[in-house]
Parts: sequence; C-alpha cells; structure tokens
Amino acid sequence: MTDESNQASLAAHIVTSYDEDLQYLVRRIAEMGGVAERMLEEAVVSLVNSDPALSQKVISDDLLLDDAERQIGEKAVLIIAKRQPMAADLRDVIGAIRIAADLERVGDMAKNIAKRVLAVQGMAQPKKLVRGLDHLAELALTQLKEVLDAYSQRSAEMANSIRERDDEIDAIYTSLFRELLTYMMEDPRNITACTHLLFCAKNIERIGDHATNIAEVVYYIATGDQLVNDRPKDDETATVGAGD
Amino acid sequence: MTDESNQASLAAHIVTSYDEDLQYLVRRIAEMGGVAERMLEEAVVSLVNSDPALSQKVISDDLLLDDAERQIGEKAVLIIAKRQPMAADLRDVIGAIRIAADLERVGDMAKNIAKRVLAVQGMAQPKKLVRGLDHLAELALTQLKEVLDAYSQRSAEMANSIRERDDEIDAIYTSLFRELLTYMMEDPRNITACTHLLFCAKNIERIGDHATNIAEVVYYIATGDQLVNDRPKDDETATVGAGD
Repeated sequence: MTDESNQASLAAHIVTSYDEDLQYLVRRIAEMGGVAERMLEEAVVSLVNSDPALSQKVISDDLLLDDAERQIGEKAVLIIAKRQPMAADLRDVIGAIRIAADLERVGDMAKNIAKRVLAVQGMAQPKKLVRGLDHLAELALTQLKEVLDAYSQRSAEMANSIRERDDEIDAIYTSLFRELLTYMMEDPRNITACTHLLFCAKNIERIGDHATNIAEVVYYIATGDQLVNDRPKDDETATVGAGD
Repeated sequence: MTDESNQASLAAHIVTSYDEDLQYLVRRIAEMGGVAERMLEEAVVSLVNSDPALSQKVISDDLLLDDAERQIGEKAVLIIAKRQPMAADLRDVIGAIRIAADLERVGDMAKNIAKRVLAVQGMAQPKKLVRGLDHLAELALTQLKEVLDAYSQRSAEMANSIRERDDEIDAIYTSLFRELLTYMMEDPRNITACTHLLFCAKNIERIGDHATNIAEVVYYIATGDQLVNDRPKDDETATVGAGD
C-alpha cells in the first residue's frame, strides 16, 4: 500500500466514524422522542380510563429519559473534544444537547400528569373537562411527532410551521382554564380534583412549548440562524381576571 | 525579534484572547443572573404592594434575558468553532449555554408572576398566603444568588449544598398549595385569585428547580462529572389528595 492510499483510507475511516458519532446522537434523540410521546399518550389514557397501573408505568419510564439525556450530553461533549466539528456539524452536536434537554422536560411533565391521576383517583371528575384535556394532549402530541420529523429531516420549513401552531394549543388551554375555574366555583367539592386537572392542562401546554423550543433548535441546525423570539411563549391564562 | 520570541508573543496573545472570550461568557451570565434576581424580587414586591407599574416593568425586562440568552448561545458556538477548546474549557462553554437557558426560563417565571399580579388587581387576596409566597420567593432568591456565586467561584462543594436545599422550597410550596386549596373551599369567591396565587407559587418553586439545574451545571463545569439524578425534581403537590 502506498502512503497516499494509506492516508486516503485513514481519512475515509475518520469521516465514517464521525458520521457514526452524529448518527448515534440522531438515533438517541429519536428514541427519546418515542419514549416522550408514549409517556404523554399513556399519562392521558391513564387519566381518561382511571388506570393507576398505567400511571405508575409512566412514572417509572421517566428514568429512561433522565438517563438518555445524560448519556447524550456526555457523548456530545466527547464528540466536540475529539472531532472539533465546525459549522453545520457543530450546530448538530449543540442542537442535540438542547433537544435532549427539552425531551427530558417533556418526560417530567408526563410524569407529573401521571402522579396527579393517582391523586384524583376516586374523586368525581367532570367528563367534559377530561375530554378537553384529551383533545389538548392530542394537539401537543401532534406537535411533538412533527417536530421530531422536522429534526430527522433537518427541515427549517417544517420547524417554522410547527412553531406557528403553538397558538392553537394556548387558546384551547386558556378556554379549559376558564371552564375549570367555573366548575370549581359551582361546587367547592370539585376544587381539589379541578386543581390537579388545571396543572395537568398546564403540563400539556408546556409540552407544546417544549415542542416549539425544539422547532427553534431544528431551525438553527438547518440554517445556522436563530429565530428571533417574537413568539409569546407565555400562556394567556395569566391574564384571566374575575370579570371573565 | 527572533522567531522564538515572535511565537511566544503570538501564543500569549492567543491565550489572552481566549481568556477574554471565556470572561465574556462569565460576565454575561453574571449580568443575566442579576437581571433574573431583580425580576423575581420586583415581581413579588409588585404582588405584596399591588403595584401594577412595577409588574409592567418586570414584564418588559424579560426581553433583556431573551436577548442575552441568544447572544451567549451565538458567542459560545463561535468560541467552540474558533478556539476548539478541550476538557475544562469546553465544559465552561457548554455550561454557559446551559446556564443561560435556565436563567432565561427564570425570567419567564418572574414575568408570569407579574402578569398574574395584574390579573388579580382589585380582588381580595389573603394576606397570610401572600406572606407565604413572599417567604417562598426569598428562599428561591437565596438559592439563585448562591448558585451564581458558586458559578463565579467554580465551586463544586457550594453547588452540591445548594442542590440539597431545594427540598425546603418544595416543602413550603406544598404547604402553601394546601392552604390555597382550603381557602378556595371556604369561599368560592376566592377561587380566581387563589388559582393565580397557586400558579405564582408554582413559578417560584420552578425557579428553585432552575437554581438546582444551574447547580448541577456548575458541578459539571468544576469536576467534569455529572451528578446522577437522585434528586426528585417533581414537586410534592402532585400527590395531594382529597383526604389531606
């Protein structure tokens, strides 16, 4: 073998290996996304069906995401140190750290919903409001699925359209918030259960926010630009007054 | 000038310049920390004193943190690409990205409190509960101040002790949560105001969580190890049932 071919084969080896490193991050993020989606789905099913065993499963699944985030973070730092990636590659690695952090938080939200399902066990729960929560969760789940697609396709366009749709989740959350207040006022015996449902709704709304954060990271990975934050991340319920 | 002294002066120049880059990040994080602390302080003062002008100030100050986070993120990526830092230096830069994200979220929480102060304007607010919120905010503020000290001193030991004290905030939050429920049950006219106070308390509790996250990043910067997550990040109120 000549020196030249030796070097070419070495270079090819390094390139492949680097791609493998990035593929590892992409694969682990996709796995985390799958777990986070399932946790949200199951948390809400456990609420609708009053299924404490399923709630317990969601609570213990959260450890999977905590571990995955830590491992992705460690691997990302190793990749930067070893490979010294530039430009788009560096954005990929930094982006993976950020997305993993958001998905880990989505898991925390789903776990919190599951815990509240256990807390409201046996209390009267207004069917209409539980249906409302179910609908809100469907929207958040769609956002989550689509943003993970946008990530795997590195699509700035998809990322942008996801970000714009967060308003719909906020609007439905705000109307649920008002309904829950009304329900509590009608009968004080509903207060404990409704307060837990209120926090469940808030958790789902925050999952929508995390999907939006991920969309912003995908946009950054794909384009190198940061979307300037003209989107009001805050929910509207903060301004719901007594006269509403 | 000899070649050797030329090189030495070049090396010194590069070193200085790199330190300047890192110092920029440290300085910007300290500034963000200062703004976040002030926002929390003023949000709670505006609640205690029913001061809508101060609430408005907190709401508009949030933009400062959004901008600072974006700028720190951009600078950090530039530093990695240009300087290709290794080991402790790389941890510093990655850590700055993470801490900036947490401080930006602290600003969001303070802004949300300020908005709710505007929403409850003119409603009866239980003095005792507002005092409870004020106390909770003091604890969170102490955590925030100390974790920023731990960051500026790169102290793993301080970081660790801050992380352990988050339990106290969670315990006080849980007792406030119960009191707020009781107050709502006593008189349904309190429900709207108490719900907003409930979310204010939750925001403060989450600021404590962000301080804990930052403590974990400081530990990582200082030691290179990640603290394994044996700390229950979730609040206890998720399990407050009807029998409590």
